[in-house]
Amino acid sequence: MFLNIKSVARVLFGRGCFDQLDDILKQQRHASDSFMVFVVDDVFKSSPLEKRIPLLKEDLLLWINVDEEPKTMYVDHLTGSIKQFHDRLPSGIVGIGGGSTMDIAKAVSLMLTNPGSSADYQGWDLIQNPAIYHVGIPTLSGTGAEVSRTAVLLGPEKKLGLNSDHTVFDQIVLDPELIADAPSEQRFYTGMDCYIHCVESLNGTYLNPFSRACAEKAIELCRNVFLDERPEKDDHLMMASYFGGMSIAYSQVGVCHALSYGLAFVLKIHHGIGNCIAFDYLEEFYPDAVKEFRLMLEKHQIQLPRNQVKGMENQDIEKMIDVSSVLEPLWENALGKNWKSIMTRARMKKIFQRM
Amino acid sequence: MFLNIKSVARVLFGRGCFDQLDDILKQQRHASDSFMVFVVDDVFKSSPLEKRIPLLKEDLLLWINVDEEPKTMYVDHLTGSIKQFHDRLPSGIVGIGGGSTMDIAKAVSLMLTNPGSSADYQGWDLIQNPAIYHVGIPTLSGTGAEVSRTAVLLGPEKKLGLNSDHTVFDQIVLDPELIADAPSEQRFYTGMDCYIHCVESLNGTYLNPFSRACAEKAIELCRNVFLDERPEKDDHLMMASYFGGMSIAYSQVGVCHALSYGLAFVLKIHHGIGNCIAFDYLEEFYPDAVKEFRLMLEKHQIQLPRNQVKGMENQDIEKMIDVSSVLEPLWENALGKNWKSIMTRARMKKIFQRM
Repeated sequence: MFLNIKSVARVLFGRGCFDQLDDILKQQRHASDSFMVFVVDDVFKSSPLEKRIPLLKEDLLLWINVDEEPKTMYVDHLTGSIKQFHDRLPSGIVGIGGGSTMDIAKAVSLMLTNPGSSADYQGWDLIQNPAIYHVGIPTLSGTGAEVSRTAVLLGPEKKLGLNSDHTVFDQIVLDPELIADAPSEQRFYTGMDCYIHCVESLNGTYLNPFSRACAEKAIELCRNVFLDERPEKDDHLMMASYFGGMSIAYSQVGVCHALSYGLAFVLKIHHGIGNCIAFDYLEEFYPDAVKEFRLMLEKHQIQLPRNQVKGMENQDIEKMIDVSSVLEPLWENALGKNWKSIMTRARMKKIFQRM
Repeated sequence: MFLNIKSVARVLFGRGCFDQLDDILKQQRHASDSFMVFVVDDVFKSSPLEKRIPLLKEDLLLWINVDEEPKTMYVDHLTGSIKQFHDRLPSGIVGIGGGSTMDIAKAVSLMLTNPGSSADYQGWDLIQNPAIYHVGIPTLSGTGAEVSRTAVLLGPEKKLGLNSDHTVFDQIVLDPELIADAPSEQRFYTGMDCYIHCVESLNGTYLNPFSRACAEKAIELCRNVFLDERPEKDDHLMMASYFGGMSIAYSQVGVCHALSYGLAFVLKIHHGIGNCIAFDYLEEFYPDAVKEFRLMLEKHQIQLPRNQVKGMENQDIEKMIDVSSVLEPLWENALGKNWKSIMTRARMKKIFQRM
């Protein structure tokens, strides 16, 4: 069985294309009492971008905070606020921000039409009903959240995405100008998410020529950005993220992402930085890529956080291992069907303890 | 204004994935009297592929002949046969074949829901109503027809596509095994369509980082296939065609395609071979690429047809120039807004006369 990939229906790309958002949304404002919900990272409060959001008086603007990774409770709370705001559902959800904001926008658009808590849907293909029309507008590039079929959330028990075809955005707006002003560390860590998941895709057992071609191009573009510092590097990074997301849509991530999910669950750190912390200890799995990654760290003078796990209570380490172990497709992609005998809990623990 | 690209909604990729077609179509067979129409290149009559087509007794199989490029009259005739076959519209059109078959399948799915003749819609965004659900299954790779928003037809007056968002397939099935048995010349000419339109895209004024990344990857994959003859070359060629199609979706083709349309209109030759005939005389526009193209010709021992225009009646040459001149976006992409003063009819004539 091959995966029948659901694509983002519409892709708008170009410097300054954000200004076409108003026209795009107009086509979705059918009824006279229709309204849009903008889900926007609160770092843009009082920024020039805020003034450019095509907000009508009937619309709802939700400033969201993603200092911590998005939680299922937060998604449930936001969904509740939208339901309280109006007695009918919105015509669309527009997410503006980084990967966490993309994930919240996707999750909210799903939870408006699916009963219960978002925690009930952490897993694969549990979502039953189509989402509200939803638009993703990245202001950071690398996660691939703009094209992926998941919305990663921290639940009470696990960090795991709402993986489903309904999760995929109906429209993405890729405007390289929007990522130009991201803080350089954050830009680096998010970009490395792309580099790392492409390495995992290329070295995985799920690889096929479709995901190979996408991952190869994404890695080349990452090199343009983080090693060669070519002009138009914002454009390159945005395209790297797009291709990287396409690559994992058809394959899967691997060891680094699996460990990084465990790390993020307990340490409450962001996905990009979690990946970088973990990747530096994975030379045995991805030797050439870890070397190249260290070159990029050096070039961008990034000091990775160290000793994050040292001195941690044993029960926390066990929790990290629990959270990582749930991610069976990731391990199977990385190490094959026999992964449980290769990556024992004891081995996982040893790797975590170096971080 | 940036183009808001409409994507193919679902992409299935993999060796042998053709066998999932039955499951995919089941999801579209809603009503009890619903039926599918298979539009299949007649070279597959009595072939092993014929037996694998998931045809139900209520379905219609139309064998189509594409020895000549598809004409608007032919599309109108096929549309009429489908309307006569049943008093309701089909649930889907499934095209199985090369670029011409893809174009016929797309055009028929549009003409079942839009009144008049397909010749009325040759141009840009003239189609008013959404098409019938349509599926593209390429058995030749290179044209990019599987992802493009056009269905190129020879009309009474011109060779020009039905360019519209509604033209885009709802589903494509990319099974590299299906292209393995194509005759080697045909495979070469069709593959060169991809190489050439990527060269035109990369050298055009419409280029942006999205179409650049796609075209660069497609050209690299073409080199893997036609210069290095890597293993998995069917997979590489199929992906090259996909990326090449994506590249021109966001940019445009150029001098070679414009001339080749004129050539094909008068000589009734296929698009791939027409492109190759023209490209060999375009060193002044695409010097490095024409050199590399000649290496590929040599490696594959392809003898290009020569002297196709020599001795042609003047009125036929004038007709070729007329047909080529209509393609304003192609010329503008290649030569800029001022193209008419650069590519005069006299200059076009001189180039044609060398072919």
